[in-house]
Amino acid sequence: MNAHLQKACQQLGLPNDHLAISIGSNWQPGRGESLNVRSPIDGQTLAEFKMADARQVEAVVKEATAAFVKWRTVPAPVRGEFVRQYGEKLREFKQSLATLVSWEAGKITQEALGEVQEMIDICDFAVGLSRQLYGKTIASERPSHRLTEQWHPLGPIGVISAFNFPVAVWAWNAAIAWVCGDPVIWKPSEKTPLTAIACQTLFSQVLADNPEVPPAISSLIVGGADVGQSLATSPKLPLISATGSVPMGRAVAQNVAARLGRSLLELGGNNGMIVAPSADLDLAIRSITFSAVGTCGQRCTSLRRAIVHESIADKLRDQLLGVYEKLPIGDPTSDGTLVGPLVDERAFDSMESALAAAKSQGGIVHGGGRMTSNVPQGGFYVRPALVEIASDAPIIQQETFAPILYFMRYRSLDEAIGIHNCVPQGLASAILTNDVREAELFCSAAGSDCGIANVNIGTSGAEIGGAFGGEKETGGGRESGSDSWKLYMRRATNTINYSTDLPLAQGIRFEV
Amino acid sequence: MNAHLQKACQQLGLPNDHLAISIGSNWQPGRGESLNVRSPIDGQTLAEFKMADARQVEAVVKEATAAFVKWRTVPAPVRGEFVRQYGEKLREFKQSLATLVSWEAGKITQEALGEVQEMIDICDFAVGLSRQLYGKTIASERPSHRLTEQWHPLGPIGVISAFNFPVAVWAWNAAIAWVCGDPVIWKPSEKTPLTAIACQTLFSQVLADNPEVPPAISSLIVGGADVGQSLATSPKLPLISATGSVPMGRAVAQNVAARLGRSLLELGGNNGMIVAPSADLDLAIRSITFSAVGTCGQRCTSLRRAIVHESIADKLRDQLLGVYEKLPIGDPTSDGTLVGPLVDERAFDSMESALAAAKSQGGIVHGGGRMTSNVPQGGFYVRPALVEIASDAPIIQQETFAPILYFMRYRSLDEAIGIHNCVPQGLASAILTNDVREAELFCSAAGSDCGIANVNIGTSGAEIGGAFGGEKETGGGRESGSDSWKLYMRRATNTINYSTDLPLAQGIRFEV
Amino acid sequence: MNAHLQKACQQLGLPNDHLAISIGSNWQPGRGESLNVRSPIDGQTLAEFKMADARQVEAVVKEATAAFVKWRTVPAPVRGEFVRQYGEKLREFKQSLATLVSWEAGKITQEALGEVQEMIDICDFAVGLSRQLYGKTIASERPSHRLTEQWHPLGPIGVISAFNFPVAVWAWNAAIAWVCGDPVIWKPSEKTPLTAIACQTLFSQVLADNPEVPPAISSLIVGGADVGQSLATSPKLPLISATGSVPMGRAVAQNVAARLGRSLLELGGNNGMIVAPSADLDLAIRSITFSAVGTCGQRCTSLRRAIVHESIADKLRDQLLGVYEKLPIGDPTSDGTLVGPLVDERAFDSMESALAAAKSQGGIVHGGGRMTSNVPQGGFYVRPALVEIASDAPIIQQETFAPILYFMRYRSLDEAIGIHNCVPQGLASAILTNDVREAELFCSAAGSDCGIANVNIGTSGAEIGGAFGGEKETGGGRESGSDSWKLYMRRATNTINYSTDLPLAQGIRFEV
Amino acid sequence: MNAHLQKACQQLGLPNDHLAISIGSNWQPGRGESLNVRSPIDGQTLAEFKMADARQVEAVVKEATAAFVKWRTVPAPVRGEFVRQYGEKLREFKQSLATLVSWEAGKITQEALGEVQEMIDICDFAVGLSRQLYGKTIASERPSHRLTEQWHPLGPIGVISAFNFPVAVWAWNAAIAWVCGDPVIWKPSEKTPLTAIACQTLFSQVLADNPEVPPAISSLIVGGADVGQSLATSPKLPLISATGSVPMGRAVAQNVAARLGRSLLELGGNNGMIVAPSADLDLAIRSITFSAVGTCGQRCTSLRRAIVHESIADKLRDQLLGVYEKLPIGDPTSDGTLVGPLVDERAFDSMESALAAAKSQGGIVHGGGRMTSNVPQGGFYVRPALVEIASDAPIIQQETFAPILYFMRYRSLDEAIGIHNCVPQGLASAILTNDVREAELFCSAAGSDCGIANVNIGTSGAEIGGAFGGEKETGGGRESGSDSWKLYMRRATNTINYSTDLPLAQGIRFEV
Repeated sequence: MNAHLQKACQQLGLPNDHLAISIGSNWQPGRGESLNVRSPIDGQTLAEFKMADARQVEAVVKEATAAFVKWRTVPAPVRGEFVRQYGEKLREFKQSLATLVSWEAGKITQEALGEVQEMIDICDFAVGLSRQLYGKTIASERPSHRLTEQWHPLGPIGVISAFNFPVAVWAWNAAIAWVCGDPVIWKPSEKTPLTAIACQTLFSQVLADNPEVPPAISSLIVGGADVGQSLATSPKLPLISATGSVPMGRAVAQNVAARLGRSLLELGGNNGMIVAPSADLDLAIRSITFSAVGTCGQRCTSLRRAIVHESIADKLRDQLLGVYEKLPIGDPTSDGTLVGPLVDERAFDSMESALAAAKSQGGIVHGGGRMTSNVPQGGFYVRPALVEIASDAPIIQQETFAPILYFMRYRSLDEAIGIHNCVPQGLASAILTNDVREAELFCSAAGSDCGIANVNIGTSGAEIGGAFGGEKETGGGRESGSDSWKLYMRRATNTINYSTDLPLAQGIRFEV
Repeated sequence: MNAHLQKACQQLGLPNDHLAISIGSNWQPGRGESLNVRSPIDGQTLAEFKMADARQVEAVVKEATAAFVKWRTVPAPVRGEFVRQYGEKLREFKQSLATLVSWEAGKITQEALGEVQEMIDICDFAVGLSRQLYGKTIASERPSHRLTEQWHPLGPIGVISAFNFPVAVWAWNAAIAWVCGDPVIWKPSEKTPLTAIACQTLFSQVLADNPEVPPAISSLIVGGADVGQSLATSPKLPLISATGSVPMGRAVAQNVAARLGRSLLELGGNNGMIVAPSADLDLAIRSITFSAVGTCGQRCTSLRRAIVHESIADKLRDQLLGVYEKLPIGDPTSDGTLVGPLVDERAFDSMESALAAAKSQGGIVHGGGRMTSNVPQGGFYVRPALVEIASDAPIIQQETFAPILYFMRYRSLDEAIGIHNCVPQGLASAILTNDVREAELFCSAAGSDCGIANVNIGTSGAEIGGAFGGEKETGGGRESGSDSWKLYMRRATNTINYSTDLPLAQGIRFEV
Repeated sequence: MNAHLQKACQQLGLPNDHLAISIGSNWQPGRGESLNVRSPIDGQTLAEFKMADARQVEAVVKEATAAFVKWRTVPAPVRGEFVRQYGEKLREFKQSLATLVSWEAGKITQEALGEVQEMIDICDFAVGLSRQLYGKTIASERPSHRLTEQWHPLGPIGVISAFNFPVAVWAWNAAIAWVCGDPVIWKPSEKTPLTAIACQTLFSQVLADNPEVPPAISSLIVGGADVGQSLATSPKLPLISATGSVPMGRAVAQNVAARLGRSLLELGGNNGMIVAPSADLDLAIRSITFSAVGTCGQRCTSLRRAIVHESIADKLRDQLLGVYEKLPIGDPTSDGTLVGPLVDERAFDSMESALAAAKSQGGIVHGGGRMTSNVPQGGFYVRPALVEIASDAPIIQQETFAPILYFMRYRSLDEAIGIHNCVPQGLASAILTNDVREAELFCSAAGSDCGIANVNIGTSGAEIGGAFGGEKETGGGRESGSDSWKLYMRRATNTINYSTDLPLAQGIRFEV
Repeated sequence: MNAHLQKACQQLGLPNDHLAISIGSNWQPGRGESLNVRSPIDGQTLAEFKMADARQVEAVVKEATAAFVKWRTVPAPVRGEFVRQYGEKLREFKQSLATLVSWEAGKITQEALGEVQEMIDICDFAVGLSRQLYGKTIASERPSHRLTEQWHPLGPIGVISAFNFPVAVWAWNAAIAWVCGDPVIWKPSEKTPLTAIACQTLFSQVLADNPEVPPAISSLIVGGADVGQSLATSPKLPLISATGSVPMGRAVAQNVAARLGRSLLELGGNNGMIVAPSADLDLAIRSITFSAVGTCGQRCTSLRRAIVHESIADKLRDQLLGVYEKLPIGDPTSDGTLVGPLVDERAFDSMESALAAAKSQGGIVHGGGRMTSNVPQGGFYVRPALVEIASDAPIIQQETFAPILYFMRYRSLDEAIGIHNCVPQGLASAILTNDVREAELFCSAAGSDCGIANVNIGTSGAEIGGAFGGEKETGGGRESGSDSWKLYMRRATNTINYSTDLPLAQGIRFEV
């Protein structure tokens, strides 16, 4: 193992032998299949240990359920103080945790640091929330009646996260869930268990300073799809928050629906950007490049489709290809690298297939292909691809988790919006324009049909203050800012009669 | 047909021959099975006509989808003006529509009028909403960036409603959906199609005064379960709002989840009330009676479980039985009647089975049984039942849509809350107490686990200003007041960069 | 008196002899000076009667205070129902009331109708509000404590309104105040008492249908400045809402402050519009003209300063002058008239002085001057003036209630914003631009310092859904939409301890 | 000077020589009168230095105004990060700052620590706010129009604080003002300048770590009433937040009103508590004692009036007198002390006069009088007084800043509420009852007329999550939680037209 990584693990207090399950600070071995964790950087093994199997889920759920009964009556600001301390802990170990993110997910250092910063940000935000969690008092139609609603803790929640944001997505859920009064059971991606173990280890450290906190408000289960399904079907978990592919999300949604639970889904994006004639081309180059090749095209918000006005398309394409040619690709932990590896061989194969399909559908492929020199061996490093293609090519309907940018042309804004909205996913979108009417139309009811619609910035890189998530096959969930916290609570509508009469709503008379 | 009913139908402009489908004011015959609509009052046929079959759904959805494209850009206050006019129309025809409700659903006049009043109330409320639909502007972490969220129309929605609120539930959905910019496709209960046809007829009248409104913002499909399933699986309906039984809701939820749509479920309740030693007994008698026998126990919020402190249980039971004995049961359209018929024979059979089961589980059954004299022939009129039973009897876990009240005893409030929350449903609940601590605890995170928790009023009879709905198997949906309207819209998070720089969130640096 | 006006008065139920005071439907004669109400249209007397004097205020306040004690406990939705009926009454008498507005304030028919429509709109909005008036429930830091806030009725409020919106401003206040539970005492402008009497007459009619409503929730006092001061100093009126000039507002503010009351001030505007190079010139012509000459320049939101980019200034000026030349000026009740009279001779004199000052400060005055032909005799009809002037001329710091548009030039947007913000008033503002960056900057913290900042529409003509009002010398008040209703209520923060302990906030220990 | 105090000053980095003015970290000597700061503990001089005079205010305001222009465009979350760091600094120096609070204000250690904790809490809360500052997006009535409101920084604000919360009140204002984008100019009480200097010193330390922050976002001016008046009349300070006596507030309010500025007033309280027959007497004893004698009765929320049901009055009085007798009175820095000194001789004289007046009005005075033994010499230590008195005695209308509790009796709750509300102040109130109807009525529109109305806790000791402030002569201001932040910002209502048409609101047609 790399020396930097080893040092980071040590600093974080990670043991040498990994255990798949942790309830609070109680670590237990998994009894499932063996897991070989390989770094996308060089394909070397980072860790090897037994995963949990589905039968181990129940015990974890049981502990979380017991913790919930205590945690729900701890005042929210006191819960917030715990989250604040967790945020301080993250500040302290920001660099180390980022190093793990780089090694396990293959992210460049800047993005790994940014991901940890996002965890810190959400903790700060959650602390503020902990003195709010506002319900409404409401004017009652009956005399001497008080009508109000309160938001109460919901119960233990299951969080299923993906490799590409191995820690931030959990933190989004956990920080909010904790202040809302909910224990969290986390099943991270099998590709990134170490970062998860690190987060839980830091949790244990904060726990040690807060003996009155029920330990089982945070549990970790490293496991496979069977563990995920076991969480989804558990009647004790009123909410499953799942991030990943559309098929995964569809399965979770159905399992949860069958038991009338609640799902919070963050599934695929097939994110588009319209580049209008008035766009600032310099801004366009930078925002497209960051959105399309950042994280090697493996963000759910990665830019996958550029819809460019014909008057500027050639120029923009040429400039982009110029930038693409000079992109520093390679070891993500090296200074200056902007594009790291794909996560694994399967991701590389998907990229290859998509490019082949694009070609067969009339696309002109620029770039693409595996790099073999000047990059660490054992990793799958690719040249980002820009594919000129017709907007009705079937391949553009698909999300491929790789740095492929489909480049299309349009004549009128209506046409561009039509092209933009014609895919089944609905996560992030953007328009680059300096025209007020275009910008507003794009953000209006008749514009982008996505959960995120930006003007003059790219599709990726959301702030935590807004609600994050998308429509259509993206699954409709919202996390992070605004009132997303409501998904982690249950609403109770209360009517209190303090009169000696019993007037009925709607003026009904019923005298016994 | 009864003369009053005939007159009401005439006043409402109902034709003699009924057609199963209406798109705006375009009526079409169904091509499915024949439907015989019988009145719960006397079992007589009110109408007979062919229902729609599932293959007819697609054409309706198509029209609604086309209407949506226009309706979504009509300013919300203009949409609100249409709803206002619909509300005025309801005011005009309140009595007639209530007459239909009585004949088709078997409700007493007071409750039928109350149901129409609820439609009027929700229209008034929706008109106010139409100048709100508030999203948030949010402080951005980046200079010269504006961060905001807007709520946009969602698309055509499917509404599946039940016999017991044949018109109000649709109105809750329709009034809100319309101001939110969504067309509505309504599948009413097969037991109550005439009230639905009446509502759609009134809609047509308002439409006639508003030629610029796309007619297909309201469609009606009278059909069976196949039509419901067809709506649930339609990829063009982003939201299905369904009211009814748990099995129905479970099926809808799974069908909608499979296509990653959104469900708004209002399923069964198994509503309990705790009666504490300090309760005002007069209030208790009145609120229990209204909640337990009103609508002949066929509200989703009907009181099904009384959990009474042992110190007052005997007295309360005796007084209740005294009131029960004198309840005016019979023709719901007659003045003074408080308890009308069950909806049909099947409902009667369910009641009989439940009472038999209760008895076999040790319950002492007071009342129950069909009435044969002094009631219209052909209807299923029953004596409401009060069943003294242990709190661990299995039968109390079930919702039976009939006037059965399980009467249980408790010693400590903790025990009472435990009994209260031990059922799988989570709609409405109440405590009768004059003790501040008890009242507050019941409404707290550690109290009732229901969506509705009342103090010193019964479980049934909500105001439209609050959010209506429940937790657990009740399905988690919320309708009517507070911010329930958000379920009918999609949220777009917008970030607008008006600088010439491209700062990234979380302070990431990525310079190409 | 004009026949149309007479008919309108008859339809509205106005008596021939006017009384200055009305408490509910109890009319009383004034004991103050005699008032001669003259129409701006032709200077003819519309009515003559004795005004109230200051000593008559106390009795009115006393009745309002007594009404408050009852009205505050009437459920808000029931109060809303009263407002709904008042709105229906306005719908019924819209044309008649508009006729009075035209005759008394000199508005063209379209604007008079628009003003009544605004009354209707605010009633609709207030009805919706009546089921909201949302306070917050808030997470408490102490176990078994509930923290919440409720909004309660405030008390009787005084409304002082101006001639230019003789009815809408009162309706903004009254509709909101009524649903909030507050009686209203109205002192209209001495120039427009008849419209006020008409509004109160309609109120009496609605009152007659609602015998349970305390009549004194609406009172009218036609009086002079002494009456206004008497309201401002009354300790029984927790809120004074005053619309008018800066000196009037300053006096009210100090009087109210001296008794630690609350003021809601809507004072002068000196509204500017930046016209950028990318502006749609057609839109510019239309929006400038409507904002600058509409209501003969006598709106508080009238456009008074155009700040035009030098590259388009000549062209825009020429086109504007072309439009100005053809403006149909004259009898406001005639079809097609766009510009009616100034309110009186004093207004005309002010316009003349301002133009003279402008000229002496280097301004080039186009237009201006009284019209004598083709207009009704006895009214003060003027040609709207466009004055090319330097942005540092002292005259542009003043608001003159007349159709004078100062026309200035700028080079950079920063300069334009500087010019825009350099006046002491802060009501309405606009930018015409199709440039996203300019539009957003103008609406940002570093842009317009006004309460209203528009893009691509003029300064006048707000919707009731937003909060209306301005900063700096405009007085800081907000009326109409958004959360303006909070000004009409008092907030109570409640903490309820339902434990048996007494934990203190901030963790303080204090054990006796 | 006491050794503990000296050590605290050293730890905080306080210089030996004090300067009256600080702009950011730039300290300047005052040119006004000399100030001799004496400790309430022993009357010894803590410091002596020249105060600022009114002519020095302008320079400070000028710097703050310049800082505002920069600070307002710093993104709010970045401003929040500064506040977070300030909060961390307070955590670090909590004990030292509390020591200063004890020595300068005479508070017991527990309360001094609580006050600093309150500063920390508000910082945490403000950090959360910094990603919110939510405005609304609003449904527009016009097609292709976007209607929204944004909250923008307001400008430099003046904060005038009182001796009894020498640091918390400033922190409430400063933390919120800073995230809102406003610089703060602080005039502390002349009695407590050292704590203010300490806060500003800590500010300088945080500033040193944040070189990009404009230093003048925090300024301090130690001065007298002339300095306060100079702030109040300054046209550059759009908001004056003042805490103190009613006469002071009245003067500020009028000065600010004269320039049409905004005041946030937290003036006197005359706080009452109703003790009902069902009250938990143990809770009553503890909450009354803490509220009445805590901070030696020198909180604005101190309990001054107990309104006790006649059935329990004797018993409660006797028990209270028993507790009063044993109260540990003395050096507030000693462990176990619950009641420290009055702030100075003038406070003692006021207490004496009030007790004399009470006696002359028929009151029976228990306790009162200066203590001379077992307390530090030079301080004014008193025995808290309980005065049995009639509810119509004139003295109970006055707030005396000392531990005097007027003890009154009532028969019916209506009478009790009448007595409660009959005073001119309206800050804090409480009811002790276990009766739901009484508790709800007290918190309703017909109950307490105060800004704070509690159930089963005392009047003093609010959480920062709620809005703090009161009605009537208390001045109407709200600080701290809920939406109090809006007072520190200006609201801009924006309408953006992105169509090519110019539709007017209210459907007005105006075609040029």
